[in-house]
Amino acid sequence: MNTKFQTIPDIIVARLPRYLRALSILRQKGETTNSKELGTFLGYSAAQIRKDLSQFGEFGKQGTGYNIDFLTEQINNILNLAREWKMILVGCGNIGHAILNYSGFSANGFHVVAAVDSDENLIGKVINDQITIQSINNVEQIIRNHQISIAMLTVPASVAQETAEELIKYGIKGILTYAPIILSLPSDIRVEYIDPVISLQHITYYLN
Amino acid sequence: MNTKFQTIPDIIVARLPRYLRALSILRQKGETTNSKELGTFLGYSAAQIRKDLSQFGEFGKQGTGYNIDFLTEQINNILNLAREWKMILVGCGNIGHAILNYSGFSANGFHVVAAVDSDENLIGKVINDQITIQSINNVEQIIRNHQISIAMLTVPASVAQETAEELIKYGIKGILTYAPIILSLPSDIRVEYIDPVISLQHITYYLN
Repeated sequence: MNTKFQTIPDIIVARLPRYLRALSILRQKGETTNSKELGTFLGYSAAQIRKDLSQFGEFGKQGTGYNIDFLTEQINNILNLAREWKMILVGCGNIGHAILNYSGFSANGFHVVAAVDSDENLIGKVINDQITIQSINNVEQIIRNHQISIAMLTVPASVAQETAEELIKYGIKGILTYAPIILSLPSDIRVEYIDPVISLQHITYYLN
Repeated sequence: MNTKFQTIPDIIVARLPRYLRALSILRQKGETTNSKELGTFLGYSAAQIRKDLSQFGEFGKQGTGYNIDFLTEQINNILNLAREWKMILVGCGNIGHAILNYSGFSANGFHVVAAVDSDENLIGKVINDQITIQSINNVEQIIRNHQISIAMLTVPASVAQETAEELIKYGIKGILTYAPIILSLPSDIRVEYIDPVISLQHITYYLN
């Protein structure tokens, strides 16, 4: 899909997952929605919604709005979500444990198929009756055997850069990192940051 | 500060915390930086950096760039970070525990001063030798006594909306939520979402 829409600004792509989230909730109330309802739900203008979606094709009709199932399927296709994704969890501390216990990933087609850590005390531990923490020394073999392309990086900031570099050597193409440092990686590697301090500093701009 | 810069687009405000993060790392290498170096570091163009910062004033000089300490101080002022912020943690499951054990909040002036949960088995438990989990029934008293304006919401999605509504009744103005639902709250309440699935769905757009 990514070649088809190469010119779509990333800021629009970034909004599409939020559309999916909104659509899944609006679907509980009915089969159709419109740009005004979607906009109200998400805090964007109706014009913004129409403009965003028009980048990808004609999904709705003037007057009748959007069929929610159809629009969901289209956005799923655009975001490459009409398939399952395998992930490796690198770092099994508190955040790692929270991730392994969170059912929202697999409910959305993202499956943690392996978890690794460098701490000998954690290796061999079974989490959630499902995943056995393995040694980080096996990371190359695990990634290659399972053909994993996405890593969740929950290691300390001090080792995040070197760990990320190692992961991409073995074939990882996308990294969701919880380490509070900015990673410097080749431009074809997609990195998303989960950084609550940055979100808090955004909030405080608006507080007194 | 928020009245002074009322017309600044939120998308620019959202980038300022990332500038702070970059500046703190660049400061380890020297006293000054420039829009090109900052841009390379953050993945924005130099022109973007100059345009963003010019919204707030004159922070750099043609040819000599930015003094890092001065620019950091200015951005801290803009984001209301030249003070400490008190937070309450609402929900003490896995993510809540990870938050209580994370030192990055207080290192950046954000202090979790209280944690509450509805689970009787958790109430009274001491985390990290510092915080005792209290009953959610005390939440009004805690927020008012400590004059807390920011909440971190780590409750199940099914109760996130009602919990958020309760919190703002008691004076909470900003919410960082980990619950995977979109909250519907008054427009003067600032909400930021930590949602790894949304970040993953953004990554997969670019993968094959």
